[in-house]
Amino acid sequence: MNCEIIAVGTELLLGDIVNTNGQYISQRLSSLGLDVYHHTVVGDNLDRLVEAIKIASSRADVIITTGGLGPTDDDITKLGVAKALGVELSLDETSLKRIKDRFSRYGRPMPAINERQAYIPIGSRAIDNDNGTAPGIIGEYDSKIYISLPGPPKEMRPMFEEKIVPYLKQKSKHVIKSHTLKVIGIGESALQEKLGDIMTNQTNPTIALYAKEGEVHIRITAKDEDISEADDKIKEVKNKILNVLGMNVYGYNDDTLESVVNNLLQEKRMTIAFAESCTGGMISSRFTDIPNASISFINGVVCYSNEAKVNILGVNRDTIEKYGAVSMETAEEMAYCIKKISNTDIGLSITGIAGPSGGTESKPVGLCYIGIAFDDQVKVYSSVFNGNRNKIRWLATTKALDILRRNILEIK
Amino acid sequence: MNCEIIAVGTELLLGDIVNTNGQYISQRLSSLGLDVYHHTVVGDNLDRLVEAIKIASSRADVIITTGGLGPTDDDITKLGVAKALGVELSLDETSLKRIKDRFSRYGRPMPAINERQAYIPIGSRAIDNDNGTAPGIIGEYDSKIYISLPGPPKEMRPMFEEKIVPYLKQKSKHVIKSHTLKVIGIGESALQEKLGDIMTNQTNPTIALYAKEGEVHIRITAKDEDISEADDKIKEVKNKILNVLGMNVYGYNDDTLESVVNNLLQEKRMTIAFAESCTGGMISSRFTDIPNASISFINGVVCYSNEAKVNILGVNRDTIEKYGAVSMETAEEMAYCIKKISNTDIGLSITGIAGPSGGTESKPVGLCYIGIAFDDQVKVYSSVFNGNRNKIRWLATTKALDILRRNILEIK
Repeated sequence: MNCEIIAVGTELLLGDIVNTNGQYISQRLSSLGLDVYHHTVVGDNLDRLVEAIKIASSRADVIITTGGLGPTDDDITKLGVAKALGVELSLDETSLKRIKDRFSRYGRPMPAINERQAYIPIGSRAIDNDNGTAPGIIGEYDSKIYISLPGPPKEMRPMFEEKIVPYLKQKSKHVIKSHTLKVIGIGESALQEKLGDIMTNQTNPTIALYAKEGEVHIRITAKDEDISEADDKIKEVKNKILNVLGMNVYGYNDDTLESVVNNLLQEKRMTIAFAESCTGGMISSRFTDIPNASISFINGVVCYSNEAKVNILGVNRDTIEKYGAVSMETAEEMAYCIKKISNTDIGLSITGIAGPSGGTESKPVGLCYIGIAFDDQVKVYSSVFNGNRNKIRWLATTKALDILRRNILEIK
Repeated sequence: MNCEIIAVGTELLLGDIVNTNGQYISQRLSSLGLDVYHHTVVGDNLDRLVEAIKIASSRADVIITTGGLGPTDDDITKLGVAKALGVELSLDETSLKRIKDRFSRYGRPMPAINERQAYIPIGSRAIDNDNGTAPGIIGEYDSKIYISLPGPPKEMRPMFEEKIVPYLKQKSKHVIKSHTLKVIGIGESALQEKLGDIMTNQTNPTIALYAKEGEVHIRITAKDEDISEADDKIKEVKNKILNVLGMNVYGYNDDTLESVVNNLLQEKRMTIAFAESCTGGMISSRFTDIPNASISFINGVVCYSNEAKVNILGVNRDTIEKYGAVSMETAEEMAYCIKKISNTDIGLSITGIAGPSGGTESKPVGLCYIGIAFDDQVKVYSSVFNGNRNKIRWLATTKALDILRRNILEIK
């Protein structure tokens, strides 16, 4: 079955928003083994929408629209689908009741205008929306499938996952299973070279590499009529890759570097504190994105000025004056001091030059020192990162998290 | 003139990347007064590309493709354009020389495969690419314009700005000017209500509202044959809006809340330090995104644990025990203490419950206290933010930046 995704909304054509719905649905359809051959974006214009649906019907088996299900005059998707199919809209009483109930839960009567959201093309069925008022639609006409989803991602995504994925799986003979390995410390080209033998002529499962900022993801996708056969296929390839990459694989699927480090700290019942200069709070902020970070994360100091490094952390003023704020020696003291003043098991420090200015020949923009203090030792690592200010900050925090991971893994 | 943007690339249909080129070009075309009626995405498949170009030719005056100009077999855009137009490709010697020169600058001979990039449809002209090997194309056939741009944004954007914008401006009679007002402290619906009289029946300039996370942007767009007439039109509407919104307008165009606060601090030669709990380093990180933040930003403490609040900041342990870590009293002391230990003009504190757990009936998830200490006073503000953990953290830091802005403006 091949699919076309039609996003409806003038705001997309003005460039006010980007078509993330198209991307999301494409990713998910591809993981279900369904081909997507076209994306189309049209504005809130009935004639052009009807035309786009007719063109899609001529070339796709599954036509999925997003957006245009709201209650105002601008919201024309259902009318467009109905016109393209040559059917009328009719009131769906169940949907009307759900919309009214939703308003009454918020203690308000349903505005008359919202009744329009309960109309659906004759021959389609409404799909409940648990996160908004607009129901979705599924209809089958002339052996083609028409699906309409709301535009806001927080309504579209749960509806797609909970209602559309099970429906599409029923329509497909094959099971598709995917497994993602997350890799750090080795670039995409080097990875491709290392995995050359495993990847060559590999067709089921397929192996795909995705370069992310500072890491690479490897997606293994198997297709089979039997789910455990698909799992076995994935496992075999996964083990081959792990043999080659070892410690460079930091996690799987939904794991993030932050969550992996946090889990390791909690397993080993260790606490941590960060002293950051050039990254300006970014590593603390990334780490505390994780809901239960407070179990292991005690304290962070963003010692942006030399005064802060001396007065708050307790770094020796002489060290900074002699070696500079961006130096192996200062990074070492920062890591030692943050561990000491925070009374944690581990202290981690970052000092560097994020740019765009401030670089010299011997200390270029992008140079960062990362220090880690634990037990009675302090290790310092140096790197030079390429990119603009924000990319350098991101890569430095990513590298620091990976240094943490590798060191914690070695701690008994 | 109406335009269609065709993005070429299987990676878009797999959902590996999102069509940011479509968004970027749409924004720019709209600011030039050109309408975009369709976006299309097709994969690296010649037949489907030719068909898509033919469909676009039947409904648009300007057809812009992105992607598919590389040297490999997958790169089929120029062939697709040529086939759709019924012309042949021919070698462009100037482009070939540029490609060879580019390789020789890197001390390498041009691989034979790259010669393909110098072929263009007969009747088109090549557009130099200053950031890569693939030249772009402009051609006029049957009073329609065909433009092909490379896929990587770092090549596409400069080419679009430097080569395509001047070309399209020549083709258009009108000047389009836009001006954006950035608004905080008032939601989209309330804003719409307040601006009702100004917005009703307003056609030139047009006024459009864009809700962002924690703020709203108002874009005023004027169209005129004369540039200073367009400027005057914008100015008139802008002044009307400023009269209604006053202090809620924090900046214009490229201003960010961070840059506005940073500029105010530098104007008044004031220094600042942050003490954050629930936001975990995010306000420090946002503030230090600005290249010259180090002039005003001295220090940040991410006092995640109570121990850190007491030991590093110097908050009274009794205050935390009596009122809780999330309380007006703790926020007040945090702001006072961070100012004192950092020896800055201003100390700002944030303490709250970012969730998803940790809320109670009297202190729900989303509750945040923001304290600001300056001169001899400390003010504390409380808010309850809605959303997931990350949204609450974002809204809390946004609110804190706005509190800073409003207070600094009042300081003599």
